[in-house]
Amino acid sequence: MTISIKPLGNRLVVEPIEEEEITAGGIVLPETAKEKPQKGIVLAVGPGERNDEGEYMPLEVKEGDRVLFAKYSGTEVKYDGKKLLIMRESDILAKIN
Amino acid sequence: MTISIKPLGNRLVVEPIEEEEITAGGIVLPETAKEKPQKGIVLAVGPGERNDEGEYMPLEVKEGDRVLFAKYSGTEVKYDGKKLLIMRESDILAKIN
Amino acid sequence: MTISIKPLGNRLVVEPIEEEEITAGGIVLPETAKEKPQKGIVLAVGPGERNDEGEYMPLEVKEGDRVLFAKYSGTEVKYDGKKLLIMRESDILAKIN
Amino acid sequence: MTISIKPLGNRLVVEPIEEEEITAGGIVLPETAKEKPQKGIVLAVGPGERNDEGEYMPLEVKEGDRVLFAKYSGTEVKYDGKKLLIMRESDILAKIN
Amino acid sequence: MTISIKPLGNRLVVEPIEEEEITAGGIVLPETAKEKPQKGIVLAVGPGERNDEGEYMPLEVKEGDRVLFAKYSGTEVKYDGKKLLIMRESDILAKIN
Amino acid sequence: MTISIKPLGNRLVVEPIEEEEITAGGIVLPETAKEKPQKGIVLAVGPGERNDEGEYMPLEVKEGDRVLFAKYSGTEVKYDGKKLLIMRESDILAKIN
Amino acid sequence: MTISIKPLGNRLVVEPIEEEEITAGGIVLPETAKEKPQKGIVLAVGPGERNDEGEYMPLEVKEGDRVLFAKYSGTEVKYDGKKLLIMRESDILAKIN
Repeated sequence: MTISIKPLGNRLVVEPIEEEEITAGGIVLPETAKEKPQKGIVLAVGPGERNDEGEYMPLEVKEGDRVLFAKYSGTEVKYDGKKLLIMRESDILAKIN
Repeated sequence: MTISIKPLGNRLVVEPIEEEEITAGGIVLPETAKEKPQKGIVLAVGPGERNDEGEYMPLEVKEGDRVLFAKYSGTEVKYDGKKLLIMRESDILAKIN
Repeated sequence: MTISIKPLGNRLVVEPIEEEEITAGGIVLPETAKEKPQKGIVLAVGPGERNDEGEYMPLEVKEGDRVLFAKYSGTEVKYDGKKLLIMRESDILAKIN
Repeated sequence: MTISIKPLGNRLVVEPIEEEEITAGGIVLPETAKEKPQKGIVLAVGPGERNDEGEYMPLEVKEGDRVLFAKYSGTEVKYDGKKLLIMRESDILAKIN
Repeated sequence: MTISIKPLGNRLVVEPIEEEEITAGGIVLPETAKEKPQKGIVLAVGPGERNDEGEYMPLEVKEGDRVLFAKYSGTEVKYDGKKLLIMRESDILAKIN
Repeated sequence: MTISIKPLGNRLVVEPIEEEEITAGGIVLPETAKEKPQKGIVLAVGPGERNDEGEYMPLEVKEGDRVLFAKYSGTEVKYDGKKLLIMRESDILAKIN
Repeated sequence: MTISIKPLGNRLVVEPIEEEEITAGGIVLPETAKEKPQKGIVLAVGPGERNDEGEYMPLEVKEGDRVLFAKYSGTEVKYDGKKLLIMRESDILAKIN
């Protein structure tokens, strides 16, 4: 899926996966954790932040990565009827397979 | 449209797009999101911030870019009867097509 | 107008323009904006801040510039019967023509 | 145990050890301390944070290390029926044997 | 007037001028400003702050300068019956003639 | 006494000395000070923090040092029946003899 | 007077002078100032803070200096029956003669 939203800086666009149980990697998210992470797929990444010399330092996360992020991170955008999230890479906890 | 407002530093002038549904890129903004972004067109950009050597690091956003930004960002200015916003580049979430 | 107030660092002296409608550039400031900017003319600028090597990085704003700034910025000083403001360059939103 | 969660930056995945008394090293955690640490085993570590040149600075903690951490650190994830924690290395107080 | 108080770092000793109207430069301070500056004469300055190499960066303000500062800045010291103020250079708004 | 707790970064393990009066150096801690320091012996030190090049900058405090620290610093750990504290070097006020 | 308290980093040990009027330099501290400084004699100084290269930058204040400091600074320690204070150099306002 190619989208026409190009995030700025260290932001990325994530499509959240709503289903509670997925089997890839066997990860099941807890019901009652104090801070529930949520799964998603990365659709677009920004160019990264610039260092002191003004060069971009590319993000660790790439398009297509499956990620865990804190549940209420980011800003919601609707795109072709789908709910997407624009968040910063620092909101991403981990990549999953 | 050429305007006579020249933002300072990493600020830019954005003309917000008020209509709820636009078709360019098919992006429709949600009604009830906790933090609604808003679309706009960039009319003018500042020279960027200076690094430690005093050189300007130009902004990622250019004049004419269509952008998403958090709804209550920036400072309102009226210009030729239009409501414009002066905000910082860090208030811009993404560029859209 | 030459004044005998020499601001320090990245501060500048601004003479605010009180009239609501000016025609230069056609900019009219809104009545009910949440954060009303105000227009003014720069009368004096400081030498700028020093970088890590101790060199001054001159300000973007020059004497004579017309500027927009957030309405309640700075410190009020009376000079020859006029109300002037001493503020930091970071309080300036944009230059106008 | 190989897991399919790859933490980002300076984060790591820790499997907490719930039992109150362990004998390895003879460390017994107090009942009534104002800030109770908890023991755990490190299952996966991120690549570290990048310095100003953009190079990764690897973490001090390695996979397999037994660690003490403040009890309510991190984000809970369920994996193969186990409760795991994703936390930052700065939440780790010490390594134990 | 030579005094035996040697301020540290970027601090300076200022003798405040209490009279409301002075004529040097014609500056009269407002009665009802939200943040009233006050005039004073600099009696002693510190060596400045050190940069990352450990060298002192001397202050912009010199002994004998007349300065404007925010009214409730600094720490009061009595010296030979006079009330002096020890403040940081960043509390100084401008030099006046 | 060799312990099997290896603190991370600029943290150290301190065994607090509970007795009110000790004679080494003649230091007696006050009864009613607003911020009572406490004495202790350093049992283990971390490798220090890394500078921007990623090199460790070793701590000023060494194993065996007697130290003063603010009374409620750090995290309590029980070890072989003793109450130990894991704290950061910045919590240490001074070394004593 | 040699003492066996060796402060860490940019801390120093000060013996406060309690008497209200001293004649050295003729400085008399005010009764009703909003922030009363207090006089003292420096008994010991730390090695200073380390810069980014890990080198110590020695303090401006030396053993034996008479100093002014904000009255409620630092941590109280009793030593040979005297009340001493351990504070940071940044709590020192000025040296006096």
